Amino acid sequence: MTNASSPNRFYAGRRVLVTGGLGFIGSTVARRLVDLGAGVTIVDSLLRDAGGNRYNVADVADRITIHIGDVCDASLMNDLVRDREVIFNLAGQVSHIDSMQDPYLDLEANCRSPLTLLEACRHHNPGAKVVFAGTRQVYGRPDSLPVDETHPVRPTDINGVNKVAGEYYHLVYNNVFGVRACSLRLTNVYGPRQLIRHNRQGFIGWFIRLAVEDRPIQVYGDGSQIRDFVFVDDVADAFLRAGATNACNGNVFNVGGLEHIGHRDLTTLLIEVAGSGRAEFVPWPAQKKAIDIGSFYTNSDKFTRATGWRPTITLREGLRRTVAFYRQHMAQYLAEPEAAGPPS
Amino acid sequence: MTNASSPNRFYAGRRVLVTGGLGFIGSTVARRLVDLGAGVTIVDSLLRDAGGNRYNVADVADRITIHIGDVCDASLMNDLVRDREVIFNLAGQVSHIDSMQDPYLDLEANCRSPLTLLEACRHHNPGAKVVFAGTRQVYGRPDSLPVDETHPVRPTDINGVNKVAGEYYHLVYNNVFGVRACSLRLTNVYGPRQLIRHNRQGFIGWFIRLAVEDRPIQVYGDGSQIRDFVFVDDVADAFLRAGATNACNGNVFNVGGLEHIGHRDLTTLLIEVAGSGRAEFVPWPAQKKAIDIGSFYTNSDKFTRATGWRPTITLREGLRRTVAFYRQHMAQYLAEPEAAGPPS
Repeated sequence: MTNASSPNRFYAGRRVLVTGGLGFIGSTVARRLVDLGAGVTIVDSLLRDAGGNRYNVADVADRITIHIGDVCDASLMNDLVRDREVIFNLAGQVSHIDSMQDPYLDLEANCRSPLTLLEACRHHNPGAKVVFAGTRQVYGRPDSLPVDETHPVRPTDINGVNKVAGEYYHLVYNNVFGVRACSLRLTNVYGPRQLIRHNRQGFIGWFIRLAVEDRPIQVYGDGSQIRDFVFVDDVADAFLRAGATNACNGNVFNVGGLEHIGHRDLTTLLIEVAGSGRAEFVPWPAQKKAIDIGSFYTNSDKFTRATGWRPTITLREGLRRTVAFYRQHMAQYLAEPEAAGPPS
Repeated sequence: MTNASSPNRFYAGRRVLVTGGLGFIGSTVARRLVDLGAGVTIVDSLLRDAGGNRYNVADVADRITIHIGDVCDASLMNDLVRDREVIFNLAGQVSHIDSMQDPYLDLEANCRSPLTLLEACRHHNPGAKVVFAGTRQVYGRPDSLPVDETHPVRPTDINGVNKVAGEYYHLVYNNVFGVRACSLRLTNVYGPRQLIRHNRQGFIGWFIRLAVEDRPIQVYGDGSQIRDFVFVDDVADAFLRAGATNACNGNVFNVGGLEHIGHRDLTTLLIEVAGSGRAEFVPWPAQKKAIDIGSFYTNSDKFTRATGWRPTITLREGLRRTVAFYRQHMAQYLAEPEAAGPPS
């Protein structure tokens, strides 16, 4: 293990597992790992309406072992965790809105799933290092800004509650069973390979789709609400750094972006970068307002101190790359995911 | 609804549901409600090794409607919540140690169960008032003493994590769906009707059994570790007050006892009150030490301000009543619970 400035050399030849590895962030992590010479295995359930998409790794599929399966399947996970040195635990359901419609599905995807992975490690590979994809949702509506890790945990929706539990399981397994684990509390992640088929996962992907399609972009209220955007390549770098050091064990870390920005200004920037789309201001839908948390941005200094990580991609550059990606690959992200990639 | 000093008049003729109502605290709440003239329905799964015991309500069974069933059974709960004005949600698995052996059972009992109850209320009785049995476990190892509700939530075992999630669900359903709900974070509750068949739920019941049986009482380490004991009748009063006022909605409250005391001094007092038993100091078992949280006692002022509640039973008096209860009824608490009471 290393606390050096780059985790790049750490992963060559390492056996790594990525849960949710066909998803937006998971596939970006997996692709980086392939580039670094790791032996990469992915498990992904291709849960309907979640972000899993075979196309996300289609061009590197011959260098990855892909298992389609549910992380809640204990037999599968008991087998898959064996001999893995690092496990990036990104499987989950990420829609706040869906969690309020079907809380049981969210319970399975965000509580039973991490518990199953951790039990598998406890009994079959206690030496593994696990990095969990947490979320800034655990903070709920912030008391003050920026939010650091001492802010109270106060989730405002079912998805947030279950993500809290998922994160705490990792800390318990670290502290009690010695399965080294940590959690990265991600802010609003954006970039290529994000789900854009519907608007029930983070609005940024949906906004980008609308801009690329030159359609109106609905901004709620006056658009003054602030979010903290972090580009997916910066997030993948954060995961790799956390997985390569013991300095993170048993801890939670905010992982936010270079810039925070209001919805209105973000939309203006996006339209400028894309050269298409237009903003349309509409009242807040009641269902979304009920679980909204106001403005949010984070302080990631704790993670920088532990790993040397810093975000490097400006919002303008990140949006430019993302728009360019979807201009080229849009069809693969509008189709149902099973139809998007080559058959397994 | 009332914020008056006593909830006694509130419950006459009210339709009330108690989940986990054959358990230690649930049955004490149910018995009080029967005395107050409420229409009481109990649901209890008699989960093996949990605290459910038909004998707890055997003498008032003709004045209670008892359903043996799982709160995770959505069909059952959809039916049982209809027309209930107040629901005391006490079903759950309370053993820290068991939760580490079988985290999936704990997930069902402490996450899916409250979620199912709340979904039933949301869809079939959104006007219900729900009072949840939370726990001081959510605080983990305290930063300072006494602990109030602003202390960070930091559970140290699986049971604690799942109880956190169960509590947060109640707050989410209060805030988003208007199902009025609150949580009482109970400290170490003791008194008649507590499970004493094994020592995997709170040590106090086990100590009392050993004292009554005139056996050695093992105290870990030097016995200096402090706990906050609250007598079960005081806890039942807390539930009744919380259920009778809207002042608690959407909030969490510590519910602790009149006195806190070290294990050593508690054991001395217990032996004196019982006139039997003896203390034996032994090293901490590793399994228990791993999830131990050091000394703990709470500040319950927030709940007193909201409801007028105060604990009234001294530790000496509570122990006296408890010892007298078990001297009279011990056999019913050593047998397997299904054999203990009259057939249903």
